[in-house]
Amino acid sequence: MDIRKILEDVKEDKLSIDEALKILSRLPFEDIDFAKIDHHRKIRQGMSEVVFCEGKTEQQVLKIFERMIEKGEVNIIGTRASKELYEYLKENLKGDIDYYEAARIVCAKRVEVKKNPKGHVAVVSAGTADLKVAEEAAIILEILGNNVKRVYDVGVAGIHRLFSHLDEIQSANVIVAVAGMEGALASVVAGLVSKPVIAVPTSVGYGANFKGLSALLTMLNSCANGVAVVNIDNGFGAAVVAHMINSLANGNL
Amino acid sequence: MDIRKILEDVKEDKLSIDEALKILSRLPFEDIDFAKIDHHRKIRQGMSEVVFCEGKTEQQVLKIFERMIEKGEVNIIGTRASKELYEYLKENLKGDIDYYEAARIVCAKRVEVKKNPKGHVAVVSAGTADLKVAEEAAIILEILGNNVKRVYDVGVAGIHRLFSHLDEIQSANVIVAVAGMEGALASVVAGLVSKPVIAVPTSVGYGANFKGLSALLTMLNSCANGVAVVNIDNGFGAAVVAHMINSLANGNL
Amino acid sequence: MDIRKILEDVKEDKLSIDEALKILSRLPFEDIDFAKIDHHRKIRQGMSEVVFCEGKTEQQVLKIFERMIEKGEVNIIGTRASKELYEYLKENLKGDIDYYEAARIVCAKRVEVKKNPKGHVAVVSAGTADLKVAEEAAIILEILGNNVKRVYDVGVAGIHRLFSHLDEIQSANVIVAVAGMEGALASVVAGLVSKPVIAVPTSVGYGANFKGLSALLTMLNSCANGVAVVNIDNGFGAAVVAHMINSLANGNL
Amino acid sequence: MDIRKILEDVKEDKLSIDEALKILSRLPFEDIDFAKIDHHRKIRQGMSEVVFCEGKTEQQVLKIFERMIEKGEVNIIGTRASKELYEYLKENLKGDIDYYEAARIVCAKRVEVKKNPKGHVAVVSAGTADLKVAEEAAIILEILGNNVKRVYDVGVAGIHRLFSHLDEIQSANVIVAVAGMEGALASVVAGLVSKPVIAVPTSVGYGANFKGLSALLTMLNSCANGVAVVNIDNGFGAAVVAHMINSLANGNL
Amino acid sequence: MDIRKILEDVKEDKLSIDEALKILSRLPFEDIDFAKIDHHRKIRQGMSEVVFCEGKTEQQVLKIFERMIEKGEVNIIGTRASKELYEYLKENLKGDIDYYEAARIVCAKRVEVKKNPKGHVAVVSAGTADLKVAEEAAIILEILGNNVKRVYDVGVAGIHRLFSHLDEIQSANVIVAVAGMEGALASVVAGLVSKPVIAVPTSVGYGANFKGLSALLTMLNSCANGVAVVNIDNGFGAAVVAHMINSLANGNL
Amino acid sequence: MDIRKILEDVKEDKLSIDEALKILSRLPFEDIDFAKIDHHRKIRQGMSEVVFCEGKTEQQVLKIFERMIEKGEVNIIGTRASKELYEYLKENLKGDIDYYEAARIVCAKRVEVKKNPKGHVAVVSAGTADLKVAEEAAIILEILGNNVKRVYDVGVAGIHRLFSHLDEIQSANVIVAVAGMEGALASVVAGLVSKPVIAVPTSVGYGANFKGLSALLTMLNSCANGVAVVNIDNGFGAAVVAHMINSLANGNL
Amino acid sequence: MDIRKILEDVKEDKLSIDEALKILSRLPFEDIDFAKIDHHRKIRQGMSEVVFCEGKTEQQVLKIFERMIEKGEVNIIGTRASKELYEYLKENLKGDIDYYEAARIVCAKRVEVKKNPKGHVAVVSAGTADLKVAEEAAIILEILGNNVKRVYDVGVAGIHRLFSHLDEIQSANVIVAVAGMEGALASVVAGLVSKPVIAVPTSVGYGANFKGLSALLTMLNSCANGVAVVNIDNGFGAAVVAHMINSLANGNL
Amino acid sequence: MDIRKILEDVKEDKLSIDEALKILSRLPFEDIDFAKIDHHRKIRQGMSEVVFCEGKTEQQVLKIFERMIEKGEVNIIGTRASKELYEYLKENLKGDIDYYEAARIVCAKRVEVKKNPKGHVAVVSAGTADLKVAEEAAIILEILGNNVKRVYDVGVAGIHRLFSHLDEIQSANVIVAVAGMEGALASVVAGLVSKPVIAVPTSVGYGANFKGLSALLTMLNSCANGVAVVNIDNGFGAAVVAHMINSLANGNL
Repeated sequence: MDIRKILEDVKEDKLSIDEALKILSRLPFEDIDFAKIDHHRKIRQGMSEVVFCEGKTEQQVLKIFERMIEKGEVNIIGTRASKELYEYLKENLKGDIDYYEAARIVCAKRVEVKKNPKGHVAVVSAGTADLKVAEEAAIILEILGNNVKRVYDVGVAGIHRLFSHLDEIQSANVIVAVAGMEGALASVVAGLVSKPVIAVPTSVGYGANFKGLSALLTMLNSCANGVAVVNIDNGFGAAVVAHMINSLANGNL
Repeated sequence: MDIRKILEDVKEDKLSIDEALKILSRLPFEDIDFAKIDHHRKIRQGMSEVVFCEGKTEQQVLKIFERMIEKGEVNIIGTRASKELYEYLKENLKGDIDYYEAARIVCAKRVEVKKNPKGHVAVVSAGTADLKVAEEAAIILEILGNNVKRVYDVGVAGIHRLFSHLDEIQSANVIVAVAGMEGALASVVAGLVSKPVIAVPTSVGYGANFKGLSALLTMLNSCANGVAVVNIDNGFGAAVVAHMINSLANGNL
Repeated sequence: MDIRKILEDVKEDKLSIDEALKILSRLPFEDIDFAKIDHHRKIRQGMSEVVFCEGKTEQQVLKIFERMIEKGEVNIIGTRASKELYEYLKENLKGDIDYYEAARIVCAKRVEVKKNPKGHVAVVSAGTADLKVAEEAAIILEILGNNVKRVYDVGVAGIHRLFSHLDEIQSANVIVAVAGMEGALASVVAGLVSKPVIAVPTSVGYGANFKGLSALLTMLNSCANGVAVVNIDNGFGAAVVAHMINSLANGNL
Repeated sequence: MDIRKILEDVKEDKLSIDEALKILSRLPFEDIDFAKIDHHRKIRQGMSEVVFCEGKTEQQVLKIFERMIEKGEVNIIGTRASKELYEYLKENLKGDIDYYEAARIVCAKRVEVKKNPKGHVAVVSAGTADLKVAEEAAIILEILGNNVKRVYDVGVAGIHRLFSHLDEIQSANVIVAVAGMEGALASVVAGLVSKPVIAVPTSVGYGANFKGLSALLTMLNSCANGVAVVNIDNGFGAAVVAHMINSLANGNL
Repeated sequence: MDIRKILEDVKEDKLSIDEALKILSRLPFEDIDFAKIDHHRKIRQGMSEVVFCEGKTEQQVLKIFERMIEKGEVNIIGTRASKELYEYLKENLKGDIDYYEAARIVCAKRVEVKKNPKGHVAVVSAGTADLKVAEEAAIILEILGNNVKRVYDVGVAGIHRLFSHLDEIQSANVIVAVAGMEGALASVVAGLVSKPVIAVPTSVGYGANFKGLSALLTMLNSCANGVAVVNIDNGFGAAVVAHMINSLANGNL
Repeated sequence: MDIRKILEDVKEDKLSIDEALKILSRLPFEDIDFAKIDHHRKIRQGMSEVVFCEGKTEQQVLKIFERMIEKGEVNIIGTRASKELYEYLKENLKGDIDYYEAARIVCAKRVEVKKNPKGHVAVVSAGTADLKVAEEAAIILEILGNNVKRVYDVGVAGIHRLFSHLDEIQSANVIVAVAGMEGALASVVAGLVSKPVIAVPTSVGYGANFKGLSALLTMLNSCANGVAVVNIDNGFGAAVVAHMINSLANGNL
Repeated sequence: MDIRKILEDVKEDKLSIDEALKILSRLPFEDIDFAKIDHHRKIRQGMSEVVFCEGKTEQQVLKIFERMIEKGEVNIIGTRASKELYEYLKENLKGDIDYYEAARIVCAKRVEVKKNPKGHVAVVSAGTADLKVAEEAAIILEILGNNVKRVYDVGVAGIHRLFSHLDEIQSANVIVAVAGMEGALASVVAGLVSKPVIAVPTSVGYGANFKGLSALLTMLNSCANGVAVVNIDNGFGAAVVAHMINSLANGNL
Repeated sequence: MDIRKILEDVKEDKLSIDEALKILSRLPFEDIDFAKIDHHRKIRQGMSEVVFCEGKTEQQVLKIFERMIEKGEVNIIGTRASKELYEYLKENLKGDIDYYEAARIVCAKRVEVKKNPKGHVAVVSAGTADLKVAEEAAIILEILGNNVKRVYDVGVAGIHRLFSHLDEIQSANVIVAVAGMEGALASVVAGLVSKPVIAVPTSVGYGANFKGLSALLTMLNSCANGVAVVNIDNGFGAAVVAHMINSLANGNL
């Protein structure tokens, strides 16, 4: 596991070149310090770890949080967290923990994140029913150090409301557009700006909505330039992409 | 078949009541003059017959046209007609025949239709690729006696173009909105007017468009009031509904 | 916001033309009185606001009703309202409130709506199981000032029942046809009348019904003229389109 | 293979019981005369063999016909046969061969089939475009010895035409109902008769027809009693089921 | 409504021929005794009415049963009936009522049905999990007067079990084949018999079963002759078709 | 049923050859000792019977277990078993019973299974959420006598973790790869080994996951060689295939 | 249209305030210089116009190119352009035109674009069959002024090839990942980098690939952070998003 | 790239340990001899390379073959190869090349493959239309050194034919089961054997077959043990899995 040791042993004749070769041939998969690519499920710039809480017991989430905190100085974010879970963690976890109810997010903040001070991310949503998903995106973005401007309830069926916030949208570095039902918001927004739009279809709606499929297809078929799409209801996923883009625009990535 | 005859025969004792009853019991399905409900595939107000030409040979279409013309004073409209078909009909059919190339419609006009002089129908389409379907709707509407205003190429990705024609759209009695790809046009238009919007999804697009399914779902899930949808690429169907509505608004139905 | 003021200031030299231009250039999206197009989620002729109650808490619905009533003289309609919600509103909302149980609608009537006295709208439904959706359409239509004739339980599998009400259907200005399972009612009705038919597929059925998809596809593929379709179970949406059409026929739109 | 021989050998001590047992243990799958259940792809009562011609070369079809004729006295039916194929067979096959163009069927008749003289099978179809499939069913039924009454072009959008043939439909032993687009014909027919209705969805239509899926779902979801469905465009399959039922009604099965 | 009266009045000069004509012209849809075609939702031979109980309250079902019994001498069958419903009906309905638990059927028998004494219907099912649907078919068939032979738990994965009951299957007039998961039973059975097979896909299974879709598609695509399919889990529907066929075979239809 | 007896009777003239023939002709389906192919739902090498417990009552499962144990020396495995079921069985079943909680498996071990001592089966899973399915596979494999190496939580988004266990994977005789969400694990693993990979898509995920469909399609479309797929969440099914393969590699099948 | 003129007229009393108000009330939709948001179908930074050539005749494309060039100094890009189209344009269009065969792109370069000199965009593709789509993305990116590094044929089934280019991928500002079949590439790449990954599913594959649906679902369900998806085969769309992100990273947006 | 050289340089002091470390840290992705895992698209035991020819030009395939042959002693297999392609290769490629027409496979054999002498693989197919896919599997298996027994045209609709070959199937080490339409063959076969069954759905069929989807779902939902499935029409993929299993059974993997 210690390549330096192998090299030293070779140098000092404690290890034959053939033996060293045999050990090293296994290296790619065993011995290299993988830390540099060990960013799986971790948002790198913000030193944050993320836990998807839905479907886990309170005890399981607590244990995961504790283990992560032990491993070092990081912030732990829990998505899809109920208020009950928050209260359980608050009581049982060492140190502070915050709760963002509309976004269903808990956050155990332990270190300061690197900020993206230049510009902002706009989070735009179509209806009040899309709020949960939009807030998930907005809060994640804020925790990761981005300025966020929320432009909510601006669906295309009342398009003038969208226009009265055009400035906040056009001046953003990147826009997260959240919409269910017919999902046309992403196209309309992308037609009005020259920045990337990360579109989040939501499962809001009924009938031939098919749990978000209609909004998803609408967004994928957008005839406007600059739209890329994440999974249905995946506010978190959109926030991470938007955070990366905003960090690039801030020279932080 | 002649009920009057039956009644007269009963009256004149040529037919017993029992025999008359037996004949009459078959009436509902045999003897009543069905003309009054025989409007199948016929557009009633305009005295027009319609033939779906796609998949029929030139000879078949000619024969159908000839038979219809024989049956009486009507206008015959052929939809999905190629230019070749038109030329064949022109050469072989007695009397004049018109061709609308963009709409792929042939029309053998034989009688004047009742006009709908008050107001107009707006036909709005998103992209140049939707033109065929939009023109099918527009030409059918005109042949049936409606004033039509075309507002083409006003997709939501360049929404200002839509706004510069708002007047023609808002003042219409009914709007036909034709759009492929993400199909958001119907929602945006319906959000701007207080008239019924007949939405036509088109199969224009590629990838996860699934031959018009994405636009269809978008339109069905419209969060704006006043949208009803017809089948994919069915410009003709939308025109008939819009024509009925405009006729009602003109007191003609 | 007050353009007149800007013009007066320009006229009176209180504002330079350049400064006025700068303000006005922002107008389209900020300053124009949007009231005239602010009909989003509002049914214009009837001065009515509509709230989709499903998925909202009783407190949320109450707050929305109160805020709307404050804003002025309108009628507030709540769709998908449980009896519990109605009782909660009755106790807590200032003024009267009505409940239509079969339709799951609450209505706080505050002003008289403009009537559509000429003719009526027929609401036709296939099975008793489609009643909820049919009643949603019928009640909304009545609240908005339309005469409604209900023709229920006339599915195509017992088509004579449909025929015994043919008069009420043929004499309507517009027909709302509600059907689940195989959804053939819309085609049969449209084949018998010369008025627009707004078809509502319902999610009633089981097996390969796929939550209303079978009825939806049937209606979209109707071979009869004059059928346009709204989303699955969307009785409200059909009512709004039918109301617009009936208003046009009454010269009220 | 000859069990009698085995038994005789056992009896005559030419075969030990153990050896006989060993042979017999293989019997179920090897030695039993399978002829009595060897009706795969064969229509039993009519002594007919059926070949699905689509996708086979003319030479392949010829060879199959020749081999079948050699094997004995049977009638060979080829479905989905082009006129070219027919002409090729006519020229190259020994003996007579008939062609039914609308049904795309070739038939080399070699023996008389047992007739079903009592009653008839009604083949009902919705539109002229469904003709091919309806004729495939009708011709197969006739070749197999059934009386057939054709009731074509009686779609639900012009339901009175259906009624004017009610007698032929109600008096049939079994009805084959062929319809594309919205496929409602099967339900309407089943609501008017007390006999089994074999429904054949066709791929006729466009847009959200999805190659016959809409008609298929409609028929499966029929709210009328007595409907069973075969695969899309499978006129042959419906004919076989209807033939079996008519044979049962004639005491021939 | 009384045509005889009209004829008598004409005869006796109490009614002019013109007035009589006007009344009669409405006849098809109003006055004819529809009893002869009023077999909607009624199984004719057995004088039985059927109620789909699922989704109805106990009070609603009771009321429907009472009303039907009042209307005359019929047997009332309730499908998808819970044991609780049965106990409620037993207590509150006048007269006897039977319950078939596995089939979830209640039956208020009031008259004797016409029997189909010749031959039997085989109900074949693949797994124990398909039992409910198979029993629904079997009990309905028995109530309607058919001999039924049950051959259960004979899925294709243990095909020898099917063979050990081949006799009961091959000697039936018609077979109802019930299967979920891969649904191959219908094909295998149809390959072994020369009688019609009514196939019922069930929603039994998990994963890519998609609530019965896999079995449905399998059955529709059967390469064996003589298979027709009803909706997923629709044991009742299959029973009605099978009853009609068996009645035809008994000369009872 | 006793063929030897028949042969002896024939030999001893107690039975005529004709009578023997008649009995034997029924043999294939009645009399042959089917034990040799009666392996339906039974895993042959391990002498184990398997019961799918989900959807059965505790009493039903108990009865099945008791009946199976009576029939002879076998091990009975119950899949999808809740802890409550286990406790019920423990109390009521004669003899020992084990419970594997993560795998939701109960096992009443009565006999020793034949081991597969050479090599092992690797069970690889992508996320902690796939654990249930992976454990179902792993425990079934162990009960059936295979060595199992578990390599869990090695999803492709952190591919280095997969590499650090490459040895255990590459040296396996067969690999079971369990993954939900995007399901890419099977391809990556198959690209790294030269052994068969049995892929199990899981229903883990949300949004456009469609209950495992996305993972299923991914695995079916794998561009790596050596991947075969079982149904969504079917850990048991994968284990049986893998057990067969490992038994073949051990010369045990 | 000239607001300044209106203001001057008001000031000079040539226009009453009321008249001015009336004109201005129409402004938002008519008179404002929309140039600043008129970026529909235009890639803003690069002064480029884009034409989707597929489905247009050579004459139509030529006309569009000519009209665009007339309108001013821009570069015109044609996507999905055949070699024949290129040759036609080369002959008939004034000025130079380039062709990129693998990418099916024509480009009439007329002005210099603003470069993004810092860093590069990596275009990664899974198989040789995905080349067309990958090249479409790469060439568009280059025309718009980005440095592009191509990393082709690095599918997950041979993951080491991906690793040997890790440097080019990890050092990119943004990655375009193109993959058909199982589409796992995007997840694997996103697991190895901390930059946004724009995923393009391709329709490459067969069987249960469903024209790219399997790759699309895989990418949407990616369990790795930082993935956003565009439509199937939409290399152009991915390029535009990636170009925007790279421009932001270069301070150019 | 030459690790040995690095080690020697370290030993001989030509390279410092730190420098060596830096180089080696890049190793996993750059320098390790990947040959040992470079089995992507290569079938290891048989030293064979495989080219998917469909969609490639004759020139491209030739070039790929030449390059592969140059790289060393391997056999090159081309799948989905037309006869024209074969003739082109025969003329232009150095050395022999074989063609298997029914399987659409070309093979340039250059080395002897290691045989799997013990036992055989059974390739079972349902209909003549599945032949292409079955032969693709069979020929690949033979080229890779396996004994193959073909059992063709044994669909479940004529199940006795399957039984008459039971011996060849039951004695195989592994079975490849190929079936379109309802795809039930895999279940039936798996119910009769105790060996793994690799199921290949084919796109053969029409109507609700949906290009093989029905057979695919049937096979995934098999209620028999021991079935694993590959993609639609993927005879090659099934052959590779079956070859691996047979090699394991022969101690060759």
